[in-house]
Amino acid sequence: MKLALNRQDSIPLYRQVAQRLRELMENGTLSAGARLPTVRKLADDHGLTRLTVQSAYGELQDQGWIQSVVGRGTFVAERQRPRPAAPQPRLEISGSLAELLQVGDRPARFKLAQATPGEDTYPLKELKSCLGHALAQEGTMGYGPLQGEESLRSAFSRLLLTRGVSTAPEHILVTHGAQQGMDLAFRALSLPDQPVMVEVPVYPGALELLRSRNQPCLEVPLNNLAAVEEFCRRHRPPLLYTIPCFQNPTGLVSSPETREGLLQLAQRYDFYIVEDDVWGFLAYDDSPPPPLKSSDAGNRVIYVTSVSKTLTPGLRLGAVVAPPEPLATMTQLKHACDLICSSLHQRALAEFLRRGAFDPHLQSVIRTYRDRRDALMEAIQTHLPECECEAPGGGLSAWLRLPAGCDETDIFRQAKEEGLLVTRGQAFYASHQVPGCLRLSFGTHKPRALQQAIALLGQIVEQSRRRTSLLRQRVRLNANPLV
Amino acid sequence: MKLALNRQDSIPLYRQVAQRLRELMENGTLSAGARLPTVRKLADDHGLTRLTVQSAYGELQDQGWIQSVVGRGTFVAERQRPRPAAPQPRLEISGSLAELLQVGDRPARFKLAQATPGEDTYPLKELKSCLGHALAQEGTMGYGPLQGEESLRSAFSRLLLTRGVSTAPEHILVTHGAQQGMDLAFRALSLPDQPVMVEVPVYPGALELLRSRNQPCLEVPLNNLAAVEEFCRRHRPPLLYTIPCFQNPTGLVSSPETREGLLQLAQRYDFYIVEDDVWGFLAYDDSPPPPLKSSDAGNRVIYVTSVSKTLTPGLRLGAVVAPPEPLATMTQLKHACDLICSSLHQRALAEFLRRGAFDPHLQSVIRTYRDRRDALMEAIQTHLPECECEAPGGGLSAWLRLPAGCDETDIFRQAKEEGLLVTRGQAFYASHQVPGCLRLSFGTHKPRALQQAIALLGQIVEQSRRRTSLLRQRVRLNANPLV
Repeated sequence: MKLALNRQDSIPLYRQVAQRLRELMENGTLSAGARLPTVRKLADDHGLTRLTVQSAYGELQDQGWIQSVVGRGTFVAERQRPRPAAPQPRLEISGSLAELLQVGDRPARFKLAQATPGEDTYPLKELKSCLGHALAQEGTMGYGPLQGEESLRSAFSRLLLTRGVSTAPEHILVTHGAQQGMDLAFRALSLPDQPVMVEVPVYPGALELLRSRNQPCLEVPLNNLAAVEEFCRRHRPPLLYTIPCFQNPTGLVSSPETREGLLQLAQRYDFYIVEDDVWGFLAYDDSPPPPLKSSDAGNRVIYVTSVSKTLTPGLRLGAVVAPPEPLATMTQLKHACDLICSSLHQRALAEFLRRGAFDPHLQSVIRTYRDRRDALMEAIQTHLPECECEAPGGGLSAWLRLPAGCDETDIFRQAKEEGLLVTRGQAFYASHQVPGCLRLSFGTHKPRALQQAIALLGQIVEQSRRRTSLLRQRVRLNANPLV
Repeated sequence: MKLALNRQDSIPLYRQVAQRLRELMENGTLSAGARLPTVRKLADDHGLTRLTVQSAYGELQDQGWIQSVVGRGTFVAERQRPRPAAPQPRLEISGSLAELLQVGDRPARFKLAQATPGEDTYPLKELKSCLGHALAQEGTMGYGPLQGEESLRSAFSRLLLTRGVSTAPEHILVTHGAQQGMDLAFRALSLPDQPVMVEVPVYPGALELLRSRNQPCLEVPLNNLAAVEEFCRRHRPPLLYTIPCFQNPTGLVSSPETREGLLQLAQRYDFYIVEDDVWGFLAYDDSPPPPLKSSDAGNRVIYVTSVSKTLTPGLRLGAVVAPPEPLATMTQLKHACDLICSSLHQRALAEFLRRGAFDPHLQSVIRTYRDRRDALMEAIQTHLPECECEAPGGGLSAWLRLPAGCDETDIFRQAKEEGLLVTRGQAFYASHQVPGCLRLSFGTHKPRALQQAIALLGQIVEQSRRRTSLLRQRVRLNANPLV
């Protein structure tokens, strides 16, 4: 069997193999029950790695085209599912946030690139009922109130009490997710030529915002108050962006000293803290520390959150809690940006919260994600024993530190070729640092798939190390005569 | 009868009168069938104008509290409706766009301030069915594709053909309404210190955007190419914002010479044209001229539109059509702003368009709005014979030029007191011009209510003129000795 593959094509090789085999099954060349070549044979015949063929077979098996019988081989399945629709053409968009989103949207076997909840966790039935409820109300399809629906702001104020944030509905602004809350905060509270402090490694959406404004970024290592104070003295930055609870990408929690210190420095050097608390609800072990906002006596904290990680990103709804003056500026800016958020979605979410559906849902997804986190960590110990990775106490990501001598970009690309999507460490820095890390997000897959993904990653890391060390040996050999 | 009124209160007097009377009816002081004082009597007893009492009675009648019997008087009705909920507390937000939205959201008898479709026109049943359809699909509640759902971009590309814009789905970006399209265009294609040209009078949302960036605004009078060229020579602005079809607030259409000339100047002086075409679909007399985008051979036009005026603003969906390079920049920026638009809404709208439901809906609302426009124009001729107002051929607004010596701010405030909301002319200029105009939007009311509203406005204009001329006389008398 000889398959037509094109190494210049942007489609990964494993997908080309799968596609060619599917074509042969569709046109009857390979009929139901026919035996496929072994992985080794197909790989050797086409000059491919076995991993590539394994990935292709894995995809076909996932889609129901083929079946493996232990000890006998791989066979064309009896009933074949229709092919999924062809991927659509796209613009070339740059930026690490765009890379992240685009990558996450591309077909792949294992999606660990986006820190997003599993689609299998969305409470669709209840949401549908709440949408129907909202749609039956008057005025649901018009222009609603400026700051957001009163019913939703009230519901948010009750929900935020569970995070220790005590606020009145009139101090809340409804936004299109936490990302819009950040955009509004950055635009309303800093000028494009003012440098902004950002804790790194950091959520790429914050970096993308600064890049879009050509705004200088001051990178503060996590839990480093001295660096914050030094930047304050030298640059008088108007803002600091931080994720104190289950930080993205590391999954870590800021120390009590950092939390206390940041609030004090914000007072002393007169800057606002943009606190991103989208992860604080998702705690798997102990109860999480309350946000900075809960002890913001000096009114320095702009608190942004959303239901995109706990409930669904599809509603595009988040909330900002801020002192009156910045909140008024941000509200005015929100209208210049896109007027308002959908009243239908706002009322549906308010109804979901009013019914008391949020808490049982949260308890259920916490159990689900705890299992996924545990499976991920176990698989890392088994298949990536030389990597460092601290188990995250919450959120949806783990920060994998590769062994010395590993090239994160090479591993990232190789993994993509094999249908395993992860995010490379450099996406989390504004500077061109390559920290030798990968972010692994565990929200979308069940434990078994996570184990398979990490087993695959283990092979890729091993291969990459061997390639890199061979390359080094050659460089050393070639370099010798020149010394 | 003596009612407790507070002239310092922010609640308009007519609403205070209505509220006191409602309280008397609720606590039984005024029981069903009881006769109310005449308008003249109540006005004289409280030092109010008759108009104020008329407005209060009008509101109570609209709400079903009282009934007028011709020739006999006004009586407490038999069955009384419950009071509407109290208005909610709000932040103090400034800016003319915010004023517009806030005003539109406040209870009033006649709402002619917001250029918004009538809630009675929304095709709720069909939309609900389309939302249900979308909700049943897979992946509707996750993070969808960067540029917007393929199904919606395809549907938009077909819809835009009816406006003479021929474009492929991959050159379309889905946005949160036209406002977000404008925000992205201004941010992506101009720096905050670069002045932007804007045709005036203009949609306040454009001015608000420039204000939020502290960006200089170059005001170009409508159809004035010489002014555009002069600004280009002196300032090299990167952008011009225009609404060539059924301009908001005037309802006018740019001349063929202006359209041709703008495209040529954009080429010669290397600027982009942000063309706002939210109104082009709503044409009541002849077929409307095609947008600039339809003859954009030089790739200078960023075309923004939405379904907020034709279908419903509640979906918060619009589209941008732009040449590849600016579109890529705007798409990247969109993600920094709020990632994506709701897939649920996008798919529901795509389904609505796929079913062919848009065209019959459009034909139906065009008939509705044509009747409203005709009623408005007729009422203006009857009740405001000294005002100038050109009948708009499309859109939802008419531009009323007050007679010389009339104070638009005085009339605007007085009208608000009487429960009639309009927009004052100065809202449509970045400079502090007070053009002596009002924008009257006719989308939300049926012909009869529009006639009542304009009759009321006629009385207010007449009163204001008398007050102003008395004041002038006094000023002249007082001024004499000083000469």
